[in-house]
Amino acid sequence: MGNQESGMQYWEDQIEHLLPGQIEARSFALIDQELDQMGIHLDETTGPVIRRAIHTTADFDYAKNLVFSPQAVEKGIDALCHGGIIITDTNMAKAGINKKKAESLGVQVFCHMADSDVAERAREKGCTRAAASMEKAAALLREEKVRRGILPPVIFAVGNAPTALVELSHLLDERQIQPDLIIGVPVGFVNVEASKEMMISRKDVSYIVARGRKGGSNVAAAIVNALLYQCPSREVKS
Amino acid sequence: MGNQESGMQYWEDQIEHLLPGQIEARSFALIDQELDQMGIHLDETTGPVIRRAIHTTADFDYAKNLVFSPQAVEKGIDALCHGGIIITDTNMAKAGINKKKAESLGVQVFCHMADSDVAERAREKGCTRAAASMEKAAALLREEKVRRGILPPVIFAVGNAPTALVELSHLLDERQIQPDLIIGVPVGFVNVEASKEMMISRKDVSYIVARGRKGGSNVAAAIVNALLYQCPSREVKS
Repeated sequence: MGNQESGMQYWEDQIEHLLPGQIEARSFALIDQELDQMGIHLDETTGPVIRRAIHTTADFDYAKNLVFSPQAVEKGIDALCHGGIIITDTNMAKAGINKKKAESLGVQVFCHMADSDVAERAREKGCTRAAASMEKAAALLREEKVRRGILPPVIFAVGNAPTALVELSHLLDERQIQPDLIIGVPVGFVNVEASKEMMISRKDVSYIVARGRKGGSNVAAAIVNALLYQCPSREVKS
Repeated sequence: MGNQESGMQYWEDQIEHLLPGQIEARSFALIDQELDQMGIHLDETTGPVIRRAIHTTADFDYAKNLVFSPQAVEKGIDALCHGGIIITDTNMAKAGINKKKAESLGVQVFCHMADSDVAERAREKGCTRAAASMEKAAALLREEKVRRGILPPVIFAVGNAPTALVELSHLLDERQIQPDLIIGVPVGFVNVEASKEMMISRKDVSYIVARGRKGGSNVAAAIVNALLYQCPSREVKS
């Protein structure tokens, strides 16, 4: 094998040889153990979401910064179990959502961030592409509702751009959207905290928000997955 | 507008109205200001990588946990400026890499994680799909080298699976790969620290590693982008 260094061999010896399926269970047990030492005990409803956000980031701040509106988790699970539509603000968040599980439930995931008409609209309006992508999603949902008479449940998952979350607040003000859940976990330094507090102030929508600066596309995807994994799989219609 | 709450209006009033292009510059200035208060001054070489990792996570731990082998940043930039190949361990990391910039340099990004032959190989071998995807990438690179006689520069970017990073260590031991840079920022609780320390112990490869448990596909993509943005764009060959 030709290992160059005893240091390398030492660390190689530390590797636990677990089967792929065992790694996640072991990780979750370690997270719960550490939370226990911090005096934090997760409840059955929000626990799976918090645990998976920590699992995705190795950052225990998510044990304290996630804010759930009443019944937010139940509404999210219900939306996904009934073949909901998920709209993300980045292709990265879309890529992080478990496709197999989503498809098994008839859940579709859309992201309009890289659409050429979104870039054009953003230029015209002087807004971010993320904000324009939410506006486009709202318009498409309205058209779909006119066409079908009824819409599947809708979840917005914002992991990157505070401007997308602010746009969702405006669309709610104007009653242009009626989502079942908004996952608001944009990350960063400019307008991030304010965009989240705007959402937390609302009484007319269910939300899961990471208070403060932290979040990310990975966290948005992790929260969606935590909800997805609580839906019993059903046969894929062919 | 029908805002429901004075709280909501208060937060809306806190929103800074910046043009899209100004948001990143403002974020970076805030990051540098905060680092300054922590007594941390970034240097010109590793600074852009550290700053972008913090920008992506809002987590200042990245000011301390990123470990760079000598000339790692220079080698990464050089590889990308010369139309390198990037191999990621997740489609999420792949999705987070700036495609326009990569294409402008002739840089290609591959992820074999979701390939059906990788799933099959992982089942046969009892390893993770992430490890099997690295093995497949190494085999494809060897074939490509036989075909072309020479390979473009290669960067592996591991943001999720410690098993992928351990596999890269084994492939290096067996001289099956000679990458220009390994970005080793898997995240989590099982084998993560050991997989990174194995890489840090090596003298035969350039690496950028996030020491400890933290990392992620978003961090891997952010590090790649920080390197990409330092390459002058060139004309896309059509």
